[in-house]
Amino acid sequence: MTMIRTAACLAVGSELLGGARVDTNSLKVARALAGVGVRVIEKRIVGDEEERIEGAVTSLLAAADLVVVTGGLGPTRDDVTRQAVARALGRELAFDDGLMAAIEKRYEILGLPMPEMCSRMAWSIPGATMLPNPRGTAPGMLIDVDGALLAVFPGVPAEMEAMLETYLIPGLERKNGGSVCATRTLLLSGVIESAVEARIQPLYGRFGRENVTILASPGVVRLILAASGSAGEAATRLDEMERAFRAVLGGDVVGADVDTLAGLILQRLRNREETLATAESCTGGLIGKLITDVPGSSEVFLGGVISYSNAAKEALLDVSPEILRAHGAVSQPTARAMAEGVQKRFGSDWGIGITGIAGPGGGTDEKPVGLVHWAVAGPEGTRHAHRVFPGDRAMVRTWSANLALDLLRRMLDERQR
Amino acid sequence: MTMIRTAACLAVGSELLGGARVDTNSLKVARALAGVGVRVIEKRIVGDEEERIEGAVTSLLAAADLVVVTGGLGPTRDDVTRQAVARALGRELAFDDGLMAAIEKRYEILGLPMPEMCSRMAWSIPGATMLPNPRGTAPGMLIDVDGALLAVFPGVPAEMEAMLETYLIPGLERKNGGSVCATRTLLLSGVIESAVEARIQPLYGRFGRENVTILASPGVVRLILAASGSAGEAATRLDEMERAFRAVLGGDVVGADVDTLAGLILQRLRNREETLATAESCTGGLIGKLITDVPGSSEVFLGGVISYSNAAKEALLDVSPEILRAHGAVSQPTARAMAEGVQKRFGSDWGIGITGIAGPGGGTDEKPVGLVHWAVAGPEGTRHAHRVFPGDRAMVRTWSANLALDLLRRMLDERQR
Repeated sequence: MTMIRTAACLAVGSELLGGARVDTNSLKVARALAGVGVRVIEKRIVGDEEERIEGAVTSLLAAADLVVVTGGLGPTRDDVTRQAVARALGRELAFDDGLMAAIEKRYEILGLPMPEMCSRMAWSIPGATMLPNPRGTAPGMLIDVDGALLAVFPGVPAEMEAMLETYLIPGLERKNGGSVCATRTLLLSGVIESAVEARIQPLYGRFGRENVTILASPGVVRLILAASGSAGEAATRLDEMERAFRAVLGGDVVGADVDTLAGLILQRLRNREETLATAESCTGGLIGKLITDVPGSSEVFLGGVISYSNAAKEALLDVSPEILRAHGAVSQPTARAMAEGVQKRFGSDWGIGITGIAGPGGGTDEKPVGLVHWAVAGPEGTRHAHRVFPGDRAMVRTWSANLALDLLRRMLDERQR
Repeated sequence: MTMIRTAACLAVGSELLGGARVDTNSLKVARALAGVGVRVIEKRIVGDEEERIEGAVTSLLAAADLVVVTGGLGPTRDDVTRQAVARALGRELAFDDGLMAAIEKRYEILGLPMPEMCSRMAWSIPGATMLPNPRGTAPGMLIDVDGALLAVFPGVPAEMEAMLETYLIPGLERKNGGSVCATRTLLLSGVIESAVEARIQPLYGRFGRENVTILASPGVVRLILAASGSAGEAATRLDEMERAFRAVLGGDVVGADVDTLAGLILQRLRNREETLATAESCTGGLIGKLITDVPGSSEVFLGGVISYSNAAKEALLDVSPEILRAHGAVSQPTARAMAEGVQKRFGSDWGIGITGIAGPGGGTDEKPVGLVHWAVAGPEGTRHAHRVFPGDRAMVRTWSANLALDLLRRMLDERQR
């Protein structure tokens, strides 16, 4: 059995060539393949045109050990991947009674009449292993082509994923004899990409630049570390990498293989049986949204107030009119009063207060667009920070939401020590 | 001068072949090209490997009138697009003193020493028009190749976009003689994709299926209509299409070329000088976030309460303990009381209340995961709806946030009549 080391992805669908939609199936394919030691060397996207699909399949089969084709297997006349693949292999499609029966059965179970056009999905390629679709109707295919492997899956992400994990990955795992490419993601918050890059540069020589990927969003940076070999070797190497990167990055690291900053905070608070509430002005609910994205957040998160107006800051958060008059809504004293006010109102252990000018309007010389004040009130007092963020409204809001969560994260870190 | 009708995009960068990052430059390229009547027929993504880039450039030049290559023009040893393109064209790179001087000048202005490796960016391809980079250092290239056009741009999105708009699009506009492909987007809410598709199917024959793209997200559907010809012809055709689609889709259409449902609602409320407040349980701030994503929302949106706990529903929204005891937190009476409570507390004209079980935990036989009740309180009374949404936590939250906004939108529609 030859090993499969390289792969190419071909996404079929005219909608993927316009200005609105990208192929994301290939991300899942690349991740799953990396786990069994297969590297993607090329991606292509073509429209629902038989000739173009045929040409791409032919040339990719010559370039990679494995070709994964997604899309164009449905019942409509647009869906021509089946025919195109048959032509690329020089084989004739054959009507498969077994497939037809399975499709009819599926509609029977759904209690729906089967549209006539569904019979198009019952044609198979001689020599192909036909793959029942665990989450839909269109079957997939696995075909051995002169030592190379051709996988053809539906384009619907959930169906594609199920087929990938059910039919392709286990076989590759056996074929490649346990050789993997494992990854570990370090989550950092309160830092910017270029500063992280400068600090980790000295480690590139030791671990290989190609084994480190930096993904940045406002206020949060992810470092994806990669290592190949047997599962054991890869894990040992990743441990070594994690230690080296943590040594350089210190307290900016939130954690390893942590999904989100909010998720980590909730986990810590749950462990301590402490609770949280939020008072948001410029972020308008974004922090609450980030927190409640996490399943089970209701154990820790009591709720919050979105105090867009000054009246709401006074009535629902007990921010005193004097503070608002003397310092304005966007100020250190207001942010502190909001954090402490929401903490008191909800009877929570922790309170976050945030107020700023997200723009594009509302800025002044003294308080420009992008100025945000945030504060975290905790069992041992309140801390505050502020910054003028660059970028548009969405960036200012994301930056400031993440930095407010980061302040809480660092206060929790300190108390843990 | 031949017209340029078809284009292929080639993105260069090994990071685009992993599991974390997709090429999004091609979306901007496709949108900009559509505006001057050029259709993308294929996309490819390859790593930073000279031979693979060379092969892709050669085969794409044979397939399309225009090839747009992005990425791999920087100063590091990874960046090999320049050499690969030269090889594909059978030309020798030549050192360009003028380019070198421009790069040195840029560093002088930045007040930084020029790293030695930057001289790599001063090599040009004979016959190419070198394009100064308005937002960075690496120059781009435009090359005529036997009637086809080859554009090579840096991969940094802001630099790529600037070059696209500055150097490529105006030339194509002239070449293609004012022929454009214009689009108009109809936004629909409170509907599902398959139902929309069934209703518009009869229009495919009249306008061409390829001119209609459906983009669906939970609770919101976008229809992108396209028409080609002179600017005037395209606009007339789009008007005709919009009338035909509206006739079929009726009140489900929120508007044409409207960015978001929240944006439209805010605009309507602003026109009437009415205000809004929100009471969110299962969406935890998501509705507030969607509303405050819109610039200027503070004129209309007074704020809200995130009442994750029952205590918060009572204390901050005046939901009576009797209602909570008799019907539970996830119920029609609670949703109504939340909407009316927040309306009263904030003194707003409109109030939204929403409560449900986003999952994955917390469901019961009687109240399963996915059950959401929402209500909108307005000047003429309160309306309520509920549904059991399919999908995971994120889907349930997005569905229910959009349907709550949709209910408000429809109540505003009715009052307008």
